[in-house]
Amino acid sequence: MSAKVPKKIYLEESEIPRQWYNMRADMKEQHAPYLHPGTHQPIKTEELYPIFCEELAKQEMNETDRFIDIPEGIQDFYRIFRPSPVIRAYELEKALGTPARIYYKFEGNNTSGSHKLNSAAAQVYYAKQQGLKGLTTETGAGQWGTALSMACAYFGLDLTVFMVKVSSQQKPYRKAVMETFGSNVIASPSETTAVGRAILAEHPNTGGSLGCAISEAIELATGSEGYRYVLGSVLNQVLLHQSVIGLEAKRQMEKVDEYPDIVIGCAGGGSNLGGLMSAYMGDKLTGKKGPHFIAVEPASCPSLTRGKFAYDFCDTGKVTPLSKMYTLGSGFIPSPNHAGGLRYHGMSPLLSKLYHDGYLDKAVSVEQSKVFDAATLFARVETILPAPESAHAIRAAIDEALKCKESGESKTILFGLTGTGNYDMQAFMDYKAGKMNDYIPTDEELEQGFSTLPSIPGIQ
Amino acid sequence: MSAKVPKKIYLEESEIPRQWYNMRADMKEQHAPYLHPGTHQPIKTEELYPIFCEELAKQEMNETDRFIDIPEGIQDFYRIFRPSPVIRAYELEKALGTPARIYYKFEGNNTSGSHKLNSAAAQVYYAKQQGLKGLTTETGAGQWGTALSMACAYFGLDLTVFMVKVSSQQKPYRKAVMETFGSNVIASPSETTAVGRAILAEHPNTGGSLGCAISEAIELATGSEGYRYVLGSVLNQVLLHQSVIGLEAKRQMEKVDEYPDIVIGCAGGGSNLGGLMSAYMGDKLTGKKGPHFIAVEPASCPSLTRGKFAYDFCDTGKVTPLSKMYTLGSGFIPSPNHAGGLRYHGMSPLLSKLYHDGYLDKAVSVEQSKVFDAATLFARVETILPAPESAHAIRAAIDEALKCKESGESKTILFGLTGTGNYDMQAFMDYKAGKMNDYIPTDEELEQGFSTLPSIPGIQ
Repeated sequence: MSAKVPKKIYLEESEIPRQWYNMRADMKEQHAPYLHPGTHQPIKTEELYPIFCEELAKQEMNETDRFIDIPEGIQDFYRIFRPSPVIRAYELEKALGTPARIYYKFEGNNTSGSHKLNSAAAQVYYAKQQGLKGLTTETGAGQWGTALSMACAYFGLDLTVFMVKVSSQQKPYRKAVMETFGSNVIASPSETTAVGRAILAEHPNTGGSLGCAISEAIELATGSEGYRYVLGSVLNQVLLHQSVIGLEAKRQMEKVDEYPDIVIGCAGGGSNLGGLMSAYMGDKLTGKKGPHFIAVEPASCPSLTRGKFAYDFCDTGKVTPLSKMYTLGSGFIPSPNHAGGLRYHGMSPLLSKLYHDGYLDKAVSVEQSKVFDAATLFARVETILPAPESAHAIRAAIDEALKCKESGESKTILFGLTGTGNYDMQAFMDYKAGKMNDYIPTDEELEQGFSTLPSIPGIQ
Repeated sequence: MSAKVPKKIYLEESEIPRQWYNMRADMKEQHAPYLHPGTHQPIKTEELYPIFCEELAKQEMNETDRFIDIPEGIQDFYRIFRPSPVIRAYELEKALGTPARIYYKFEGNNTSGSHKLNSAAAQVYYAKQQGLKGLTTETGAGQWGTALSMACAYFGLDLTVFMVKVSSQQKPYRKAVMETFGSNVIASPSETTAVGRAILAEHPNTGGSLGCAISEAIELATGSEGYRYVLGSVLNQVLLHQSVIGLEAKRQMEKVDEYPDIVIGCAGGGSNLGGLMSAYMGDKLTGKKGPHFIAVEPASCPSLTRGKFAYDFCDTGKVTPLSKMYTLGSGFIPSPNHAGGLRYHGMSPLLSKLYHDGYLDKAVSVEQSKVFDAATLFARVETILPAPESAHAIRAAIDEALKCKESGESKTILFGLTGTGNYDMQAFMDYKAGKMNDYIPTDEELEQGFSTLPSIPGIQ
């Protein structure tokens, strides 16, 4: 073990970034504009105000400001759980016998157990500033709902969470955590909304989906005075808030004189990877070499590796603006996979654009049982029980480290450990029982998903 | 918010203590000697070797060395998850409107979710050094079993955990975590041991107890070549290892020029409180004023506040040495309470002695629903979901802070936040549903427990 680099690289609270970094300001080309779902015309910032609170709508559309100040109220909240450590995976390196130097940025040391709190803090703060009464959102695996519940308890706002029904049944404890923080949690589809009632009428036994929960949350927010809808991934504003991960990580790596050759993150909606790579992507966008970026997704929901780069809805109910992104089609139904946070048909339009233009170098998809092999090894040697989502990045990091072992190269690898698996033990139990499902969708199933892509005259 | 003191007070890894502090070396009077369960004679160190590994048996009996070096191998492990932060409870202070300055030492940022890992690391290291194959232990709530599983995975030792049957049924996910780290988890009482079979023959439907699980673990260890038994609380060796909490905390408080007026810890077997108060108790034992120490226990299992100071067995099977301690009698059956880690009939003999001699100033008992009131408030403002055990200390800290509010005093309060409540959500659900059980044992029930105390000719 090198005496030089400590196991955990911390920053002082005074070193927490005071500005977020907006990658878009350095992009030569912007992602295609959001389109109004009715008119198919590029949407204007004001048109987002009924859904999002105003400051967040402005951030969503901001292509010009490289740095955006983090308000004092959010900084106070960040100080409760940030900075998060960058950890040198000495134990994992030793177990693999690799010459690679592996680091991970660990975002799981807060009650939400994930990086989601970074954006929840910001979104709730702005809602409070605007004088709103409350918020609505959806949650699948439960990290986002928990993070938002924590932020709403802290700032004193009402929160209604539509939790995908099958998730709320499988994870009653996640629901209980959100309720402990004072939130109202409703299994979706529900009788609360028109879209929920319509879906229930057609499919009374459905377990729900993220897309459906989004539609319900939007309906409730737009129909209630003083309420707005918030989303925990996909959006530009979320990637902006999550840039705090990458800004910290870069500073921490600099403290130990390291610049990563490879940066790896799991990608569902893109918030974690977009945040983790932000500061290093800034290097690449401004002409420096930058690291080799790798996105990791589940083989069961392969939006980057097998999806189409096309305009699509972000939800099943087709009420959101249209985004040009890598997508499997909003009608694609991914097979059950324990990484609920990666089970989404689309991908951040910003991240999609970076991938399409070659700045995000590579996307790989991995099968579930291999992900849990990696999760188990990692837990045993590094002592942190990872979330299934995060374990996708661990899998890819291990694979890269093993390539180094073969080639003898001593590359520096940085990956994002987005969270902990405390609420995912059913998955680990299934893994131990040999019941992992490594299903990969067939080409026919993908075609069926693509057939649900909207047809937009003159555009696609 | 004061700009002076940061929210979280960290130490560098290089500041993690390199020696544990042995309070016994500074005590004017030692606790009464352990007695052999058969002969009732003071036990000799060597007589402990069949049960405990040798280095730990020596630590158990060590009354003279003030400081004991932490071996390099344990320091390496500590660096993975230590130092733990001392956190200024600005948000809680504000919510209470108290002039008190409240700090908490947070030990929950590791996968075991508690302070138990401090002693697990040490105990497994010494077992490995002695060339043992494996260990056995018991676990109730599951924190200790998880911590030990993590340490055994890290050092490469076998582990069999006897988990109280009712706990293993209520907390299948805790079991799954231990198994993910490679442990063998057996519901107790079991058919694996003679004592288990005997109990099952008499009470086929019993949910088990900690005392019974201890007996089973000791039987398996002493009957297996290369195996020893380890215990996560009560013992002197455990308090010694846990002194790392107090040594760090004192250093952290010094960094912000604070000396606590009051130090508060929950107490089940005593490992957390014994560790947290260690360095400050050193001040008191060597003639300085020191803080006012408060132990907090559940009203349902009030060993310090309503127990007898007497010789008793540490287990139900009556195979352990006899310890003089505050006890409710090894036959006392506490009513179900969600703080499983505090549901123990006895108390560390060392801590019992300090309490009896007035160095540990005060013990209070609190009812469960008030504990969860405190847990919920704390979670919402400080954003950390506390373990029910830890919430006992929160309750007492809040009560002390409210006294300050009345009197206008600005006291400095330090309490131990031993862990997180991620695996205790059933308890929070019961609380929300108004199903908390605030049962307090009657005097008759206590008498029944006391009637199980052993009669020792010439001693008691």
